[in-house]
Amino acid sequence: MMDFRPVLMILGILLATLAFGMCIPALVDAAAGNPDWQVFAVSAGLTLFVGVSLTLTSSRGRIQLNVRQAFVMTSLSWLVLTVFAALPFTFSELQLSYTDAFFEAMSGITTTGSTVITGLDHAPPGILLWRGILQWMGGLGIVVMAIAVMPMMGVGGMQMFKVEAFDAGEKVLPRAAQISLALVSIYIVLTAFWALLMWLAGMTPFESAVHAMTTISTGGYSTSDASVGHFDSWQIDVITTLGMLVGGMPFLLFLQVVRGKPMQLWRDEQVRGYISIAGVIVVVVAALLWYETAMPPVDALRFSAFNVVSVMTGTGYTNHDYGLWGTFALPIFFFIMFIGGCAGSTTCGIKVFRFQVLYAAARVQIRHLLQPHGVFVPYYNRRPVPDEVIISILSFFFVFGLSFAFLSLGLGMLGLDFLTAVSSAATAISNVGPGLGPIVGPSGTFQSLPDAAKWLMSAGMLLGRLELFTILVLFSRTFWRG
Amino acid sequence: MMDFRPVLMILGILLATLAFGMCIPALVDAAAGNPDWQVFAVSAGLTLFVGVSLTLTSSRGRIQLNVRQAFVMTSLSWLVLTVFAALPFTFSELQLSYTDAFFEAMSGITTTGSTVITGLDHAPPGILLWRGILQWMGGLGIVVMAIAVMPMMGVGGMQMFKVEAFDAGEKVLPRAAQISLALVSIYIVLTAFWALLMWLAGMTPFESAVHAMTTISTGGYSTSDASVGHFDSWQIDVITTLGMLVGGMPFLLFLQVVRGKPMQLWRDEQVRGYISIAGVIVVVVAALLWYETAMPPVDALRFSAFNVVSVMTGTGYTNHDYGLWGTFALPIFFFIMFIGGCAGSTTCGIKVFRFQVLYAAARVQIRHLLQPHGVFVPYYNRRPVPDEVIISILSFFFVFGLSFAFLSLGLGMLGLDFLTAVSSAATAISNVGPGLGPIVGPSGTFQSLPDAAKWLMSAGMLLGRLELFTILVLFSRTFWRG
Repeated sequence: MMDFRPVLMILGILLATLAFGMCIPALVDAAAGNPDWQVFAVSAGLTLFVGVSLTLTSSRGRIQLNVRQAFVMTSLSWLVLTVFAALPFTFSELQLSYTDAFFEAMSGITTTGSTVITGLDHAPPGILLWRGILQWMGGLGIVVMAIAVMPMMGVGGMQMFKVEAFDAGEKVLPRAAQISLALVSIYIVLTAFWALLMWLAGMTPFESAVHAMTTISTGGYSTSDASVGHFDSWQIDVITTLGMLVGGMPFLLFLQVVRGKPMQLWRDEQVRGYISIAGVIVVVVAALLWYETAMPPVDALRFSAFNVVSVMTGTGYTNHDYGLWGTFALPIFFFIMFIGGCAGSTTCGIKVFRFQVLYAAARVQIRHLLQPHGVFVPYYNRRPVPDEVIISILSFFFVFGLSFAFLSLGLGMLGLDFLTAVSSAATAISNVGPGLGPIVGPSGTFQSLPDAAKWLMSAGMLLGRLELFTILVLFSRTFWRG
Repeated sequence: MMDFRPVLMILGILLATLAFGMCIPALVDAAAGNPDWQVFAVSAGLTLFVGVSLTLTSSRGRIQLNVRQAFVMTSLSWLVLTVFAALPFTFSELQLSYTDAFFEAMSGITTTGSTVITGLDHAPPGILLWRGILQWMGGLGIVVMAIAVMPMMGVGGMQMFKVEAFDAGEKVLPRAAQISLALVSIYIVLTAFWALLMWLAGMTPFESAVHAMTTISTGGYSTSDASVGHFDSWQIDVITTLGMLVGGMPFLLFLQVVRGKPMQLWRDEQVRGYISIAGVIVVVVAALLWYETAMPPVDALRFSAFNVVSVMTGTGYTNHDYGLWGTFALPIFFFIMFIGGCAGSTTCGIKVFRFQVLYAAARVQIRHLLQPHGVFVPYYNRRPVPDEVIISILSFFFVFGLSFAFLSLGLGMLGLDFLTAVSSAATAISNVGPGLGPIVGPSGTFQSLPDAAKWLMSAGMLLGRLELFTILVLFSRTFWRG
């Protein structure tokens, strides 16, 4: 039988942190004279009470998790935090059903950005801020997890990044806590910097705070139904595009930059691949947009860059309805949902390093076909990739494909049309935000979907966010047999 | 520099065989008093001339191919045969453009079954027979290739089947020529048997001949625009369903059955998986069909079984427009296009053994996550699967996904709507036949697509038919550097 006490203790600490986060919108709403402040206060109180109770009843001094407990802790913490994070949405003047509230909270905490709320422009500031804070905390959580927990668990090829972060040979900030602290600082500084830029470009301080939080976390919640398109400003578009790009990079490398090694960022194969892939797609889409709709080239580049980077990194902002750009756009925006950014960033999806390793493996396959007795090893970041890691990454790709298919099938059975079903499945599992088509596309919301579809999508978001295997492992018999 | 002579010699022999195939519709048209017999006679003459010329000018006694030549021969032969197989379509009274004729021929020879012809019910018998013969010859070609050539080339995990077919330990018909001859015989007997059954069930001898050829080859060309639905007979539906199922099984195992070991068929993990997957999907679809449209359960089972087996095996017949069954149907029929049948059958797609090996590998991954230092090996057909084979299969899956994505993107850029684009891409690369939606769905044709889309789909069919890598290897620099 597993000892749940260390798991519950960490859960308690995380809930207390969440409760602390709820106090910020409470203060803002109180300052704005909005009665919703009570909602946040009550939610915070409830969350804090449960959190502290859990911590106190399960405290046993040192926290030390084994592999099984780490898996349970990871899955359970995202789930339980969402359960509580949904409270303000139900209790507030928006009066969302608990299904809607849970969907919105899950979409927030996983940095997806799919929303069921319309009328954001007139929503109380507390709620808007809470959506931003959820994504910001979720983004930070995943960055820390991707560096401190995932490589240890060896999920989907993430073990490749274990070496770099904790390799004793490099002596880069040897202790995990120190790294985590540095990451949190960088995350805060980047957010503050982007908030400043956005404010200078014309947003109100409130808008810039929310958007900076949901940009760096590649979350995508906005303060307007029209998303960033509401501001209709090329400066804001450019700043946001750059912010989303930064949010998709490995945060650990920013540490190197701070430590005076900026070239480390550019020498990284993943970062180069990420920028190159994004660059090529932006240019192709801009060219097609210009060719098909006769939009001036500069505008085409601006809208292409913003929306391509937004969907590829899974942020999910829009500043133009790309559903109306022509038939070329839907397949492109559909497939780039799956790409994601770099490992160790706030993005989700398959991620660039997996495509790179798989591409290298496919090339090796081809050489192997020609010389069946030759030995060829794929390289990544100037290091050979062992078979074990390749299989791990390829399995991830396979399970990702299967999960996407089953999610689409489920949504189809719940009555969604083909485009809505497959794009909702893709947007959930890759944590993007909008789907495609008239209902859930960049101009729509997920409000009208049946409740069961919202629960299914929430499960998909969690599955995608935790790199599939973290959740799937809990459903294996081996796990519970001990 | 590569020696092309043995390649050209085999090509010549294959063209001569194709010319021989053209004589059959010539005779049938002549007997029916249709002037098109001249078209077939001229095409046959031309093809025979080129074939004989190639053989004579490149003949050097013994044919012995190295790996490079085998790849060139395989890719080139399917391409060149299609070029000539298209001739009757252009010259006949249908007067197809060469693009349409090439598409129809490629769709035939790859056993895809997508058509650009409407008015099949009134088309001259020669053309209908030629479509059937093309699929029948294509199906036979792929069965022989899957056993004699593919395992030698080691494409996409097919090396797993090298051992079984040519393993000296088992002493099963040791020589390749003998195996090939036995396979041809079995293929002919099965076709004849199904033609007999179909005739007994009410088809004319001509209809039963064409349908038997396109059933066993899982091709799907019919003699009517309404496909097998034209006959509106449950007996014919049941017989055809069983025929398609048989076409999706490994033909080598039929040899074992003939040799008095029928249990070999059922003991094979791939066959069991294939039947189980098909069975589960048929039942689920029948239940949903009954639930959503209140169709009587027996009819629901009949239509579900026929269309699910047809799409899963990539045959592509229809007897009911599943596009109208409800929202659940499109995602299901979309995803089952990719499944395919067994390796060593006439089906295309990803194929059941790959899903089984990948599933086994994913399970091992999960165990490995829990015990990072444990050594776990996935099993397939009671044998351990080496890492090399797993990587080969996983790479196939990855490249299949990429190819599908690029094909969809291309079709989207050519102006096809999302559903038409992605389903046409899927139907081409998996060699299924119909796509989804009002244009290319089970009640539509590919006639109205732009020419460029037809060429792109033809390329996709060839790519899918030859298991991707056979073609892709030709585009690698290593290949031509020698």
